[in-house]
Amino acid sequence: MAHFLSTSCSLTIASGSKLHSKQLYQGSMVIPSTFTLQTSKFPVKRLVLQGKRLQRSCTVHGTTLPISHEDKTQASSGSHKTSNEPSEPKRVMVIGGDGYCGWATALHLSNKNYEVAIVDNLVRRHFDHQLGLESLTPISSIHNRIRRWKSLTGKTIQLYIGDICDFEFLSETFKSFEPEAVVHFGEQRSAPYSMIDRSRAVFTQNNNVIGTLNVLFAIKEFKEECHLVKLGTMGEYGTPNIDIEEGYITITHNGRTDTLPYPKQASSFYHLSKVHDSNNIAFTCKAWGIRATDLNQGVVYGVRTDETEMHEELYNRFDYDGVFGTALNRFCVQAAVGHPLTVYGKGGQTRGYLDIRDTVQCVELAIANPAQRGEFRVFNQFTEQFSVNELARLVTKAGEKLGLNVQTISVPNPRVEAEEHYYNAKHTKLVELGLKPHLLSDSLLDSLLNFAIKFEDRVDTKQIMPSVSWRKIGVKPTTIPA
Amino acid sequence: MAHFLSTSCSLTIASGSKLHSKQLYQGSMVIPSTFTLQTSKFPVKRLVLQGKRLQRSCTVHGTTLPISHEDKTQASSGSHKTSNEPSEPKRVMVIGGDGYCGWATALHLSNKNYEVAIVDNLVRRHFDHQLGLESLTPISSIHNRIRRWKSLTGKTIQLYIGDICDFEFLSETFKSFEPEAVVHFGEQRSAPYSMIDRSRAVFTQNNNVIGTLNVLFAIKEFKEECHLVKLGTMGEYGTPNIDIEEGYITITHNGRTDTLPYPKQASSFYHLSKVHDSNNIAFTCKAWGIRATDLNQGVVYGVRTDETEMHEELYNRFDYDGVFGTALNRFCVQAAVGHPLTVYGKGGQTRGYLDIRDTVQCVELAIANPAQRGEFRVFNQFTEQFSVNELARLVTKAGEKLGLNVQTISVPNPRVEAEEHYYNAKHTKLVELGLKPHLLSDSLLDSLLNFAIKFEDRVDTKQIMPSVSWRKIGVKPTTIPA
Repeated sequence: MAHFLSTSCSLTIASGSKLHSKQLYQGSMVIPSTFTLQTSKFPVKRLVLQGKRLQRSCTVHGTTLPISHEDKTQASSGSHKTSNEPSEPKRVMVIGGDGYCGWATALHLSNKNYEVAIVDNLVRRHFDHQLGLESLTPISSIHNRIRRWKSLTGKTIQLYIGDICDFEFLSETFKSFEPEAVVHFGEQRSAPYSMIDRSRAVFTQNNNVIGTLNVLFAIKEFKEECHLVKLGTMGEYGTPNIDIEEGYITITHNGRTDTLPYPKQASSFYHLSKVHDSNNIAFTCKAWGIRATDLNQGVVYGVRTDETEMHEELYNRFDYDGVFGTALNRFCVQAAVGHPLTVYGKGGQTRGYLDIRDTVQCVELAIANPAQRGEFRVFNQFTEQFSVNELARLVTKAGEKLGLNVQTISVPNPRVEAEEHYYNAKHTKLVELGLKPHLLSDSLLDSLLNFAIKFEDRVDTKQIMPSVSWRKIGVKPTTIPA
Repeated sequence: MAHFLSTSCSLTIASGSKLHSKQLYQGSMVIPSTFTLQTSKFPVKRLVLQGKRLQRSCTVHGTTLPISHEDKTQASSGSHKTSNEPSEPKRVMVIGGDGYCGWATALHLSNKNYEVAIVDNLVRRHFDHQLGLESLTPISSIHNRIRRWKSLTGKTIQLYIGDICDFEFLSETFKSFEPEAVVHFGEQRSAPYSMIDRSRAVFTQNNNVIGTLNVLFAIKEFKEECHLVKLGTMGEYGTPNIDIEEGYITITHNGRTDTLPYPKQASSFYHLSKVHDSNNIAFTCKAWGIRATDLNQGVVYGVRTDETEMHEELYNRFDYDGVFGTALNRFCVQAAVGHPLTVYGKGGQTRGYLDIRDTVQCVELAIANPAQRGEFRVFNQFTEQFSVNELARLVTKAGEKLGLNVQTISVPNPRVEAEEHYYNAKHTKLVELGLKPHLLSDSLLDSLLNFAIKFEDRVDTKQIMPSVSWRKIGVKPTTIPA
C-alpha cells in the first residue's frame, strides 16, 4: 500500500517541466480515506510513486520545486516565527525524526524556517509494541503530528517512511528532497536494547553501521556538499582516567607529537555501534571530502520544547522503562508513582547530561555553522555532569517540595561499568558557537515531576526495573511475557 | 545437497552413548560418488545431518568423542611430527581455513598435532570467479586438500562448510567440535575489494563485524574458556606521526595518566571493519570474560610453508592481482612476466611485512600461550618495515641476478594514504613469546621470483593494474567485463 505522506502538496504539475515518463503519476490517485490534501504554495515538480520492495518501504512523496528566497519568506508566516532565522534557509533531512530527540529537532528546525523532511521507518514505535512498553505521554501518529504542525503554523514537514538500510529508498529521498544538511538520529539508540539477546545486538550494529554507511554513500553520490550532522554519544569515550577532549587528543610520545582520534572504550553493543560510525565517517571525510559533525551527546532529559508544548498532538515521547528510559526522566516517574529511585550499584557513575531544549539548540547551531569539506568535527554535546547519586538526591529534594515521599534503593547493576571513577569531559565547542544552556534547575525538576504526576495513571510499574543484564545476554531470542 | 565433510570418520555409533533421537542418522547415507569413507581411530559419537537454510550452509559433520591424552598421542603418528609439540594437544577451529593465511595455518597446526577443524564458506574462491581472477598457483578444492593431507600424514582435518554469519550453522560447529581455541581468519580481507562499490563496502563491514559478533556469542554460550585468536591488521593504526605501540598507549594528559586503546585511523572499509571488530572484542573481554588475542598483522608475502610444499595438492594460493595481491608478491609476478613494478604514487608508503612462515608461527605461539580470562591482548604481527620503493628496489636487484630486466613505474595512487610519512611500529611481544623471524632475504626473493617464473603462463596481465579507486567508489554495482 502506498501512502501519500506529505501533508501539503498540490497536485499541480508545472507545465513545461521535464517529466519522468515512467514514474510520473498524473491522474487520480488513491488516498487513504482519512487524508485531506491541502493546497500548498509550492508547486509540485514531480510526484513519484514507489512500489518496489513493499516489505521494507513504500513511499509516495511530492518534491517541491526549488523555490526562491522570496517564496521561503512568504512560507515562513507561521505563528511561531522567531527572530533567530537563518539568512539562507536550508533543506534539512532529519533521519529518525519521529523519535524522542528527532521529533523535537524536526519541529524546532521547521519553526526556525528550515525546510524539513523527516525520514523514519517508525521502528522505535515497533520496539514499544514488541516489548510491551509505552511512552508516559500519549503520542500521536507521525502523520497526525505533521498535520497538526501544519495546521498550527502553516509549515510543511515532508515525510518519507522507510528504512535507510534500504539504499533504493534512501536514494529516492535524497534525489527528491535534495538536502543541504542531514541530521542523523536514525539509529537503535538504547544500550539495554542492544544487550537483550544476540539477535538484537546484531540488529543494533547492522542497522546503525549500515544505515550510516548508506547515508555517507548517498551524500557522496547525490549531494556531496551536504553537511552530515550525526548523533554520537558521550558513551563512546567510556570513563578514562584522564580528561575527555572533544574528539581528538594531542599526544606526545617518545619525543614526537601528533593529534589523534581520542581513544574509545564503549561499553554496550549500542555504544560500540556509534564508535564504528564515528570511525567510518572520519574515513569518508578524508577520502571523499564529506563534511561531518559528530555530536557526542550526553544523557538527554526533559520532555517539553517550545514547539512540542503547542498542542497535545505534538507531545514528545517520555520513556521511563528499563530499556529506553534514561536516568533522570526515569527517576521523576518513579518519584511520582511512589516507586523507589533505582540506583544501579554504587551510583558513582558520572555522565554528561543536557536538557532536550539544548539538544535542539545544539543541532541548529551545528547546521548553521557547517563543517568544512573534508572536516570531521566532533562536539561533546552536554551541559553538566552528574553522578547517578547526585541525580537521585536532586529528585528526592524536588519531590519532597511537592509532598512526595521519595525513597532510593540500590539495585544490582545490570551493566558492566565503573561505579566510582574520575570523569571530566570538555564541552566548550558548542558554547563557543553560541549555545545558551538550560541548566538543570529546581523549576525544571518541578515541571518534570508534575508532568509525571499528570500522567501517573499511565505508568506501568512492571517496566521500571532493569530487565536486561550485560553479563547474562544469551544467544537465544528473548521472549517477552505479557 | 548434504556433503559429508570429515574425511576420516567411522560410522560406528558408540553403544550406550546418549543419542539425539531426531538428529541422529543411523542408517545408510548418501555419499557423493567421488567420496571414500576411511576408518578412523576416533569413534563417532553422533552424526548430524543438517538441511536447514540450504542456501547459506549445508553440512554434515561427524563429531569425534572426547578422546583421552593416550588416544591423541596415538593419533599424532604422522610422518611430519615435529619436536615442538604441545604437551596438551588442543582442538583448534580455523575459521577461514581455506584462504591464504588460513590454509597454511591449518596445515601447520595439524602438523604440530593440534586437532584442527576448518570452518569456511569458500567465498574467497567465489570472489575470484566473480571478478575473473585466479591464483598464480593452481589450488585444489578444499576437499581434495584435506584428503591429500590425510593420505600424506595420517592426520585428520575436520571441515565445516558454511557461513559464520549464520548463527545456527556456527552454533552447530561449536557444539560439535568444542574448540579450545578459535583462529578467526574468516573475513573479507581485501581493502580494494571493500572499495569497489557500495554493496561490497556494505558486504565487507556486515560480513566481518557480524561474523565476529557471532563468534563471540558462540564462545560465550558454548565454550567460554575458548581462546579467540583474531586476525586484525596493522592497517588499523594508519600512519600516525608517533610510534605505534601494541594495542595500547599510556597517555599523560593534564597531569593525569591512563593506559588506553591506541587510537585508530583506518583507511578503507575493510581496515575499518577490523577496527570495529577490535572494539567489539575488547568489550566482550571486559563484559563476559572472553580471552582474546588480536593479531594486528602486517602485509604477508611468500607462498611456501613446510606443509604446503609437501604436495602440489597442498599448494597455497598466490594472489598477484590488483584486488587481492599484496605488494611484494605482486612485484615478483610483475618482474617475472616483464611487467613494470607498479608503485602507487610516491612509494614512500611504509608498512610492516612478514613471511607467511612467520604467520603460522605467530598463530601457533598465540595459541600455545593463551590470553587470560577477560584479557584483550594485542600483538603487532610483522617482522620488518619496508617502504614500497624499498620493496621495488629489492625485487629489481633480485630480478637482475636472475637475468630479468625489471622496470618500475609510478601509477596514480588509487588509495587515500600518506605517501611520505613517519612510521615506527613496535613488534616485540611475539618475539618475547619465541618468534624466530624469517627475514626477507635474497634467497626468499629468488625463490619467489622462480616460483613466479614457473607459473608465468598462468599470469593474466590484465589483472595487475589497480582497478579500484578509493575516491571514485560509487553506489551502483560495479560490473566486471569479461
